[in-house]
Amino acid sequence: MPAQATNQLRVAVVGANGYGGLQTLRLLHGHPALQVTFLAGDRSAGKPWSRIAPFLAAASDLLVERPDPDRIASRADLVVMSLPNGMAARFTPALLDRGLRVLDLSADYRFTDLDAWRAIYGPIVHNDRNDGALCREAVYGLPECCADAIATARLVGCPGCYPTASLLALMPLLQKGLIETDGIIIDAKSGTSGGGREAKVNLLLAEADEAVMPYGVTGHRHTGEIELQASRMAGQTIQLQFTPHLLPMVRGLLATVYGRLRDPGLTAEDLTTVYEAAYRSAPCVTVLPSGTYPSTKWVRQTNKAMLSVAVDSRTGQVIVLSAIDNLIKGQAGQAVQCMNLMAGLPQDMGLPLLPFYP
Amino acid sequence: MPAQATNQLRVAVVGANGYGGLQTLRLLHGHPALQVTFLAGDRSAGKPWSRIAPFLAAASDLLVERPDPDRIASRADLVVMSLPNGMAARFTPALLDRGLRVLDLSADYRFTDLDAWRAIYGPIVHNDRNDGALCREAVYGLPECCADAIATARLVGCPGCYPTASLLALMPLLQKGLIETDGIIIDAKSGTSGGGREAKVNLLLAEADEAVMPYGVTGHRHTGEIELQASRMAGQTIQLQFTPHLLPMVRGLLATVYGRLRDPGLTAEDLTTVYEAAYRSAPCVTVLPSGTYPSTKWVRQTNKAMLSVAVDSRTGQVIVLSAIDNLIKGQAGQAVQCMNLMAGLPQDMGLPLLPFYP
Amino acid sequence: MPAQATNQLRVAVVGANGYGGLQTLRLLHGHPALQVTFLAGDRSAGKPWSRIAPFLAAASDLLVERPDPDRIASRADLVVMSLPNGMAARFTPALLDRGLRVLDLSADYRFTDLDAWRAIYGPIVHNDRNDGALCREAVYGLPECCADAIATARLVGCPGCYPTASLLALMPLLQKGLIETDGIIIDAKSGTSGGGREAKVNLLLAEADEAVMPYGVTGHRHTGEIELQASRMAGQTIQLQFTPHLLPMVRGLLATVYGRLRDPGLTAEDLTTVYEAAYRSAPCVTVLPSGTYPSTKWVRQTNKAMLSVAVDSRTGQVIVLSAIDNLIKGQAGQAVQCMNLMAGLPQDMGLPLLPFYP
Amino acid sequence: MPAQATNQLRVAVVGANGYGGLQTLRLLHGHPALQVTFLAGDRSAGKPWSRIAPFLAAASDLLVERPDPDRIASRADLVVMSLPNGMAARFTPALLDRGLRVLDLSADYRFTDLDAWRAIYGPIVHNDRNDGALCREAVYGLPECCADAIATARLVGCPGCYPTASLLALMPLLQKGLIETDGIIIDAKSGTSGGGREAKVNLLLAEADEAVMPYGVTGHRHTGEIELQASRMAGQTIQLQFTPHLLPMVRGLLATVYGRLRDPGLTAEDLTTVYEAAYRSAPCVTVLPSGTYPSTKWVRQTNKAMLSVAVDSRTGQVIVLSAIDNLIKGQAGQAVQCMNLMAGLPQDMGLPLLPFYP
Repeated sequence: MPAQATNQLRVAVVGANGYGGLQTLRLLHGHPALQVTFLAGDRSAGKPWSRIAPFLAAASDLLVERPDPDRIASRADLVVMSLPNGMAARFTPALLDRGLRVLDLSADYRFTDLDAWRAIYGPIVHNDRNDGALCREAVYGLPECCADAIATARLVGCPGCYPTASLLALMPLLQKGLIETDGIIIDAKSGTSGGGREAKVNLLLAEADEAVMPYGVTGHRHTGEIELQASRMAGQTIQLQFTPHLLPMVRGLLATVYGRLRDPGLTAEDLTTVYEAAYRSAPCVTVLPSGTYPSTKWVRQTNKAMLSVAVDSRTGQVIVLSAIDNLIKGQAGQAVQCMNLMAGLPQDMGLPLLPFYP
Repeated sequence: MPAQATNQLRVAVVGANGYGGLQTLRLLHGHPALQVTFLAGDRSAGKPWSRIAPFLAAASDLLVERPDPDRIASRADLVVMSLPNGMAARFTPALLDRGLRVLDLSADYRFTDLDAWRAIYGPIVHNDRNDGALCREAVYGLPECCADAIATARLVGCPGCYPTASLLALMPLLQKGLIETDGIIIDAKSGTSGGGREAKVNLLLAEADEAVMPYGVTGHRHTGEIELQASRMAGQTIQLQFTPHLLPMVRGLLATVYGRLRDPGLTAEDLTTVYEAAYRSAPCVTVLPSGTYPSTKWVRQTNKAMLSVAVDSRTGQVIVLSAIDNLIKGQAGQAVQCMNLMAGLPQDMGLPLLPFYP
Repeated sequence: MPAQATNQLRVAVVGANGYGGLQTLRLLHGHPALQVTFLAGDRSAGKPWSRIAPFLAAASDLLVERPDPDRIASRADLVVMSLPNGMAARFTPALLDRGLRVLDLSADYRFTDLDAWRAIYGPIVHNDRNDGALCREAVYGLPECCADAIATARLVGCPGCYPTASLLALMPLLQKGLIETDGIIIDAKSGTSGGGREAKVNLLLAEADEAVMPYGVTGHRHTGEIELQASRMAGQTIQLQFTPHLLPMVRGLLATVYGRLRDPGLTAEDLTTVYEAAYRSAPCVTVLPSGTYPSTKWVRQTNKAMLSVAVDSRTGQVIVLSAIDNLIKGQAGQAVQCMNLMAGLPQDMGLPLLPFYP
Repeated sequence: MPAQATNQLRVAVVGANGYGGLQTLRLLHGHPALQVTFLAGDRSAGKPWSRIAPFLAAASDLLVERPDPDRIASRADLVVMSLPNGMAARFTPALLDRGLRVLDLSADYRFTDLDAWRAIYGPIVHNDRNDGALCREAVYGLPECCADAIATARLVGCPGCYPTASLLALMPLLQKGLIETDGIIIDAKSGTSGGGREAKVNLLLAEADEAVMPYGVTGHRHTGEIELQASRMAGQTIQLQFTPHLLPMVRGLLATVYGRLRDPGLTAEDLTTVYEAAYRSAPCVTVLPSGTYPSTKWVRQTNKAMLSVAVDSRTGQVIVLSAIDNLIKGQAGQAVQCMNLMAGLPQDMGLPLLPFYP
């Protein structure tokens, strides 16, 4: 492990055994200014990290401990919560009370309104949350739209893979009012690691390889989250179509986003210029030249989002292709990007931005 | 090889070395009434089939020959042309002149109007075609919409994978006028075998695995073919959005088709009923119950199309999921289905309709 | 479903929801002389098959029932047991008592000596078996070595994928004493479907794709089974090295088998002749010409084993490549092949022998 | 691109468009002390790198140029040759004459004896080489066995993926005389990127996915190279068996190496201790605890080799599992490791040693 500067921030990772936790540890290994000093997990408590993840043994020599708020507070400044939906909300109030700043990878703090969360997650997660005030305080952790608020936040609800790819594709169009607010379609394709490190029959290689599988058609729970943020960007209420598909690959997510141009005279070149301007100061977004479309492999294992804009002048449709790595820019890398902002560091510090192709 | 009935029809396959040819031979192996009696190919002429395809040696003990029309006419009744675009048109007139019936797997005879073909394929294929009359005569080989015409046709232009999946998804909606004719979006996902058996860097496993790659955005050459047939189904001109993507799998194609319902009160159950009625006599189409979405694995290596219809009452969108095997129902199986019709046989005779899952 | 002959044998499948059950149902769909008349399962009892397997709905319209011996005996002649190790032995005695003939896909009846089974499976399976007499009676269900005994057996213990590929590779060498009996190495590579349809983290696509994983090195439980049968073939006790590896693919198994030639003057052509003779009457085995090596794709979704023999005259080693589909020739197809023999039918009746390439 | 130190070494990459070139550029992006200052290629000369590799645009803003020795000498200190076999030998003498130090990724300088090279590559590569003196001078670029010689070499012939994984597995056994020198078997499994970025039908995803394919059985051209180096390690002539297999994955290589212990009383723990000692000062080799076997995913996109040693006391065999990334430790990373040595830097400087799992 590289020598550590004395003024590093100390990071606790709660839920170290899932993909979110693994990626966070991997990304912070060698980070110049953020150091993992506490690993917490329920099932793996008491075990050395090197036993849990022999493939990442060198990333840490810590023991996994129970997620005790006092112990975390004594040894960390920031906490990354990588737990199932509904679980982060059980620990977060105690962590904030002890002066910690919290980044949550679940959906628990992505909605300003607790009732909005409850409407979507209530039926699938047992909970008796009453932390509505924290929901209102929490900042949406998409650095490309909310960098200033993230920088000073106590609590950040980091968006996952589908909202990240979708919102980066939509933001310039919505903020500038370039498309109709109805009729937006997001057709998204994800590798199966998005389903997490839980044993599920439908995510077995034998089931998921050599197959593309639509799911959650018309009712996927990320629809509401995307609509909420898209509405903020547009300044008006938006309802849209979101259709996710599982692809036979480990990592990578592509959102193909369709909208109807208000001005059908706009060309792909025009819009590419608009996107370049919108993301000029976003080091983790690359806008490709018109006519070049991103493969998810171009962003594999990076914190980069690659966008490409096409226009069909016959139909008046704009099509935005948005590619990310679902576990980095769509999960743990996003959290590191937010932590960098919270620590006053360059937002891409320590983050991989170039793939190892192929 | 099984014993052959005396009244079998004899089939010539021209272009036996590509995936279309390989699949046709495989499907006709053991077919009760169609027998491959002639194999033609340029590069492989003179070689025994068993040397070209040791994995399918048992499918035929023929030698590959040059595609000589007289020799073909003396030994076959039907000809399946599995050649690159622009090539079938060079051979077909001579074959028809000799009384053969021809099924073409390329795009050469999918357009009633030679100029329509030329507008799309002219820039990419060297040709000096003047067989406009044959284009007008040719029947579009989609049995679910054109069975009667196929049965008596001399010349059938079989649709490929993208138009097949897309048109089966759209047909009931368009024929019954259930959706607006503008704003239709087809987001299609295909395995890489759709790119054929030519060595191309972008289709190498090293490049295409662990990646999803959009291509042909706003300008894929199948757009015009789909629009032509969709317009016929709707009885009015349709322009639509077609976006293909390459997925990291060998076979399988999913079209996710979006349309705006004219009557937003229609439910998924209503439309499932409509689809079941439309495909009641189509043995190669299965309409899934509302809420069950097809994996392409469910139709892998079969001639089955599986459809599922969803409705989002919030947005007024209908979403049709349409899954096929791109090399069977999307190519060679479709040709066999057409040949069955041409021979007066049940259209699914000899065709696999059940997958070997997983 | 095709019309059924009146003199068909009736087959019960116990454990219809796993891959062994699914494949058996698929293979018997359309079999000319064997018909599935009873489906049994614990967790799925009471559900219609079409709900459990919408992708194979057409394969059966039966309800899944509890595995009651009397009910099975009243409705079936043959029983295929597709249950976890240790489970078949609980049901089999009662089934045999009622006059049924049983084929077991687990390891329960692959060992003549119950203690040999117990030595391997005792530590990992709870059991209180005392059916040693049945173990002695049971026939090893590898048709290429034991066809006559299978034909008249009441109880057949069908070998799984690793022993099948390994033993077919070794049999001619051992029976003719062509290799030393020490120093045999079997390096085996399998798709992940061999791990069954149970949710396991290490078999998730996210974990197993883009990886090759050795496991069970020096201690895999199939070692003893392979050694037992190899010893029978050789007429003397054999100990060998067996190293399995998981590959990132759904189906397919390749065993690369190494032995030291007793006569180093033998060539690959000599041995290919020996193998062709050994398997002349084996319709499910193909011996490839010297210098042609099988891809597992050449046997995918077939009941065929493809063998190729190479010799390195420098080292005196013979290398046999043996490719099968682990779920067909390595599991359910093998059982159907045995049932054909038990029913006095051609052993390859109703079995797919040609792949759909690619 | 990070700020560059003034005392950096300048690196030219010849053959920038293949996987070797792509990886070298990627690895040197951000390397603290090595900077790519010249890109050469024949087909791509004149194009900006960002056009050739939009996915790695940020790795360089250079134009690709023709491989002119004078121009290279004026702008670089070290040259990485990533060309087909037989091509490096055409350029290398002129480069050395101009004072450059050369690392060759092809086989041209891996043999001390030009005739040994010619015996293997002569039949497949047109050449009229007469640089036997350079062959004698060249150092074998495996840092774990030849670090000192590499440090001072003018010309390094870097081993590729199969020899690297195989030799790291064998070195401690051979150097200490722990195994018999006959009967060694290397059963190797590689992702298809090892076949390079040339369009070949057998490496198409459609052909290579869902398949394991043995090739080069008894005659692969890496056999001689492995034997040459293994003989040096053992101090006596070794002939061994090498069997490569193509697996359906992009990257990763596993060699499963079998040898007969001279002292059958040695245990896996004993040998693990021996391996740990042998590689104590090798930062790019990890010896796993006995009983833990490496997945190639554990070293994916790293310059790490992971080794595990097993012993079967019944058979007296030792089995060594050796996993690397074929394009990093098996190709470009190895070259960077050598360049670090040549520059007097820590050998793992700038090299990734931890994977992004999964």
